[in-house]
Amino acid sequence: MIRTAILVFLAMFALTSGRATAEEGLWTFDNFPLARVNATYGTKLDQKWLDHLQGASVRLTSGCSGAIVSGEGLIFTNHHCIMECAQDLSDREQDYVTDGYMAARADERTCPGLMAEILTSVTDYTKEINAATAGLTGDAFVRAQSAAATGIEKKACDDDTRMHCEIVPLYQGGQYRLYKYRKYSDVRLVFAPEFQAAFFGGDPDNFNFPRYALDIGFLRIYENDAPVRTPDHLTWNTDTPREGDPVFVAGNPGTTKRLMTAAQLETLRDVVYPPVQMMKSELRGRLITFAGQDEENRRISQDAVFGVENGFKAMGAEWQALRDPAMIAAKRQEEAYLKSTLSGSFATEIGDPWAEIAEAQKAYTELFLPYNFLENTPYSSTLLNYARELVRGAAERQKPSAERLPEYADSRLPAIERDLFANAQVQKPLEQLYLEFRLSKAREYMGTDAPQTQILLGKSSPEQLAAFLVENTGLDNVDTRKALWEGGMTAIKASNDPMIQYALRIDPASRDIRRAYENRVAGPTRIAAEKIARVRFRAYGTNTYPDATWSLRLSYGRIQGWNWRGTTVTPFTYMKGIYDRATGKAPYQLPQSFIEARGKFDGNTVMDFVTTNDIVGGNSGSPAVNAQGEIIGAVFDGNIHSLGGAYFYDSGINRAVVVSTAAVSVALDKVYDNQALLAELRTN
Amino acid sequence: MIRTAILVFLAMFALTSGRATAEEGLWTFDNFPLARVNATYGTKLDQKWLDHLQGASVRLTSGCSGAIVSGEGLIFTNHHCIMECAQDLSDREQDYVTDGYMAARADERTCPGLMAEILTSVTDYTKEINAATAGLTGDAFVRAQSAAATGIEKKACDDDTRMHCEIVPLYQGGQYRLYKYRKYSDVRLVFAPEFQAAFFGGDPDNFNFPRYALDIGFLRIYENDAPVRTPDHLTWNTDTPREGDPVFVAGNPGTTKRLMTAAQLETLRDVVYPPVQMMKSELRGRLITFAGQDEENRRISQDAVFGVENGFKAMGAEWQALRDPAMIAAKRQEEAYLKSTLSGSFATEIGDPWAEIAEAQKAYTELFLPYNFLENTPYSSTLLNYARELVRGAAERQKPSAERLPEYADSRLPAIERDLFANAQVQKPLEQLYLEFRLSKAREYMGTDAPQTQILLGKSSPEQLAAFLVENTGLDNVDTRKALWEGGMTAIKASNDPMIQYALRIDPASRDIRRAYENRVAGPTRIAAEKIARVRFRAYGTNTYPDATWSLRLSYGRIQGWNWRGTTVTPFTYMKGIYDRATGKAPYQLPQSFIEARGKFDGNTVMDFVTTNDIVGGNSGSPAVNAQGEIIGAVFDGNIHSLGGAYFYDSGINRAVVVSTAAVSVALDKVYDNQALLAELRTN
Repeated sequence: MIRTAILVFLAMFALTSGRATAEEGLWTFDNFPLARVNATYGTKLDQKWLDHLQGASVRLTSGCSGAIVSGEGLIFTNHHCIMECAQDLSDREQDYVTDGYMAARADERTCPGLMAEILTSVTDYTKEINAATAGLTGDAFVRAQSAAATGIEKKACDDDTRMHCEIVPLYQGGQYRLYKYRKYSDVRLVFAPEFQAAFFGGDPDNFNFPRYALDIGFLRIYENDAPVRTPDHLTWNTDTPREGDPVFVAGNPGTTKRLMTAAQLETLRDVVYPPVQMMKSELRGRLITFAGQDEENRRISQDAVFGVENGFKAMGAEWQALRDPAMIAAKRQEEAYLKSTLSGSFATEIGDPWAEIAEAQKAYTELFLPYNFLENTPYSSTLLNYARELVRGAAERQKPSAERLPEYADSRLPAIERDLFANAQVQKPLEQLYLEFRLSKAREYMGTDAPQTQILLGKSSPEQLAAFLVENTGLDNVDTRKALWEGGMTAIKASNDPMIQYALRIDPASRDIRRAYENRVAGPTRIAAEKIARVRFRAYGTNTYPDATWSLRLSYGRIQGWNWRGTTVTPFTYMKGIYDRATGKAPYQLPQSFIEARGKFDGNTVMDFVTTNDIVGGNSGSPAVNAQGEIIGAVFDGNIHSLGGAYFYDSGINRAVVVSTAAVSVALDKVYDNQALLAELRTN
Repeated sequence: MIRTAILVFLAMFALTSGRATAEEGLWTFDNFPLARVNATYGTKLDQKWLDHLQGASVRLTSGCSGAIVSGEGLIFTNHHCIMECAQDLSDREQDYVTDGYMAARADERTCPGLMAEILTSVTDYTKEINAATAGLTGDAFVRAQSAAATGIEKKACDDDTRMHCEIVPLYQGGQYRLYKYRKYSDVRLVFAPEFQAAFFGGDPDNFNFPRYALDIGFLRIYENDAPVRTPDHLTWNTDTPREGDPVFVAGNPGTTKRLMTAAQLETLRDVVYPPVQMMKSELRGRLITFAGQDEENRRISQDAVFGVENGFKAMGAEWQALRDPAMIAAKRQEEAYLKSTLSGSFATEIGDPWAEIAEAQKAYTELFLPYNFLENTPYSSTLLNYARELVRGAAERQKPSAERLPEYADSRLPAIERDLFANAQVQKPLEQLYLEFRLSKAREYMGTDAPQTQILLGKSSPEQLAAFLVENTGLDNVDTRKALWEGGMTAIKASNDPMIQYALRIDPASRDIRRAYENRVAGPTRIAAEKIARVRFRAYGTNTYPDATWSLRLSYGRIQGWNWRGTTVTPFTYMKGIYDRATGKAPYQLPQSFIEARGKFDGNTVMDFVTTNDIVGGNSGSPAVNAQGEIIGAVFDGNIHSLGGAYFYDSGINRAVVVSTAAVSVALDKVYDNQALLAELRTN
């Protein structure tokens, strides 16, 4: 599954490709190769077509994409994009993940903390950002850049709470654009199939094909307690898709690192991935045994298990792609070529940014573990994260916006507040598992005697400290969080909540390591990357696409299977196939609804299909549209080869996996008998 | 901790180094560089010194080494070498792992299945083995070699049940030697400290130094229900060890791969380690959560958790050593050199064995996963292993010895019977965890649709199949196993034990994959490796040491610290230090005995120390002796750098970690008040 983790810490410095081939490309809407595509596919795409698609494309803060598919604010996306919401709305009596969710219009329930955003405009601010950082180095560069960006964001959105403004670095600092979104903060759950239908085949079939998953979910955006009118929506097309049909995918790929330098890739391969993957694997084991203990543990950990397994598999394939020596060799070759294009005063001005990045990688290697364990928050507890947001928020809000850590600048406070004030469920047994795990790994990887371990643990053990903090904190209560946030530093200092006290204790060391990281890694890397971007623009021009940055992109391709080691994989699966694959045991266990519907529908309906579109994590839920701009499916996965897409695209084997609108309509009709939803889709 | 796993599947084809430097070397006793060592250290070692040490050196079937330290069969080894025994002797009322074990002579209890062996002679059989395989290829080579080896073993031991005979390939097939051991099958537990004393610092301190572990255990060999008289034992020396003192370590290093070819190392790095380490990490997570569920789970999984964590850490460091590109580059350089030494008819005769091995690696890459999941047994269940031994044993014993799978040849049946007839505890909850894990990983890594997955699972899920098999089998009862073994094929066919039926079902496919492995990987590799061994002998002579093969070796070195990235590590820790490091929480929690003994002994007694001896896993429990051949400690660990010892030795940083006899005597006297044992050691 290809949703993205919002807290991506791997990929801050990706560069952009200058040599897209075949269907390669994560194109921005304002630089889409219309002429080339129309010539190749015989299509007649134009600006209007693009505008219409952009206006119906949605970014979800669950790390996913989606599309508006009715005039009443209906969003079509994937099940795994709304699973956290279903989990949040569940309790011991009602398990909407396992049993699915089907609400009458009046019963659609708000997903805690979930937000939907539609891109409305893109404006260039490259000059302004460059001016703000001119001549600076190290962390001064990083902080000045953030201050300039958040200042522009604030001014552009002008305190309009319906809008979200965001400076997006493209081409690795070659361009800085302001992305302005219309945002919707009341997003309600409309429909979810049972987990066993959505994720039929489970982890074993994940990132594989043939596939039989109904990985769909419907949401609806509300304002003032009423559905939002959305005239700019996609038409629901349920024609049978055919091999060779052109397909266009609009969505928000999270991160690619296709033109990181060889030195950066080597650091990822040797320093970052090994501990990260090892930890994920162990965490997975802990969660699986936890989930197996009893029914309640199973229920509360469904989304967590899915998330860890999905991430482990995706990152495993990414790491494997990196371990192919040919990839780094090709990278070095391109670097040599780019260097060979330099001459004269431009060469003097540029210097050797590749060497500068390599130097910064040495610092990163040294700082990675403490930076990861103290300042980044992967695998960490929600409660500790709340505590940090409260503690830092109180301290930062005492300063002028431009001097704060950027995530606490005025323009970004709404995101923090959305997180803190969401009435999401916090499961303390899971919290304890996560925090204990994180602390024990910090000790293991940094060593018992490391000063950072001492700061995190003191004389405590991970097990005991985690139990104490999680049991005794009140931060699982949203009112407590609100009071602490609104009370500012006075409230924080007066609080005897142990999680707050712990966050206060570790914060100075966390800030120190962040400062060191910005000074020695982020600053030098960004400066060098901007120079490389200039070299690339000069060598290749600007008819290129930037690396993915969790912002709206468009890719093109066709419905097409692939060959791998002598095996041909055809592009379609049909709904009847799910019955052949079922074994009666999870993850190949059909929900009762599908068992009962057997024979009631045309089994030859296309269920899932694959296309050559260039997609990566974050594209989950992306609308797959035809040449007429009608929606024919939702991307929910890539095949295993597509995971190398973090680093390169190979049109021979990279495939996007799509659930067809045809199958959705059949399922809503014959499996779920949800005639209201079906009618809404059909009246498009 | 550096005990070895007996079922090592990684390293069957290691080559021998021709260029030992400094303290490098895992020397056989018959080729120890006496003159060089005496010249360097000013010692006067001679053949008598060697013979005495060999006669007191013990190999334990728990994957460890040890030494005879009294005239009454007393063996000194590590706690982690007797931990499985302590676990087996424990029950819900008595937890000898947690609480330790201290028996009066009359109460010493037999460790189920544990055997001690003392090497009595080594005889060359290279010609005979070579003659048996001349002209053969593929699996025919493998099977003929095994038949010749087991035939020689049987003849040499001549049905003397007190002896164990074993053909050991040295120098990767450059030599084949018959190792003859006096074996002792009644090995009793004498003394174990509490786990928290033995493994103080736990996994975080494992493979690290400074270290404060009393990783000791005492066993005693019995025959006819009486202690064995052992005049050839080591004198117990408790003098304070000094920096620079020469130290000699006799023990059984398990496996090194120092002169595998570059192609083999690349396969290990890219094909073998990644899934193996990922799986170990997840299994670790499953076990940790399992152990945390309740007191009984904790108790029964102590040895399992230790084993997995220890293996994960050791293998992680081995893998990391392999990922250093400089290592493979050096390997390729040496291969080029060796090729350059070839000329004339010798060159024609040898051909290009490196290319032959590279070709076999391609086959290994293809076969690795099914070979691992169907034929090898790592992470698998004891009960399934019993079933396979019973099923295969019944089939194989119907054939003449020379035609059997080698592990069922007459000379090797005692090992199978020892395993089957040992009254070891089988914990069904743990068994289920292991089997479910193994089956789910088989499906994950080979894929749901792979024929081998279908054979293992059919339409079952891993969870359900494991639960059914483990719950319903009776193979945890030793009498049931005995009856099935003695009843042969008739009993097997008549059995309705589901584990037996499952083993019968998967056996044909397992044998197929083994045959394919022998034909395409083992055979070609062994043939090529024999040729490379000849090239090496010719290039370097025979004053070299062979790679470790879980057979008796001697290494030399000095007590010495090391420097790493600017930090100097001094070679000693002192007993008082354990009180400073204690936090009151595991793994830094002192047992009550140590808390009460505080102040009762000289805190400046050396507790642990490091030496430059070249040791690897399997050396656990090895006696560290001084120039007079007196025992001054037991090796129980290596530092983290020593784990690269699988591939190379670096005298600057590789260190063996030793628990001192001085500390043992102090602890027996003042902490445990075990005057009887102390007296026995002192009367040496």
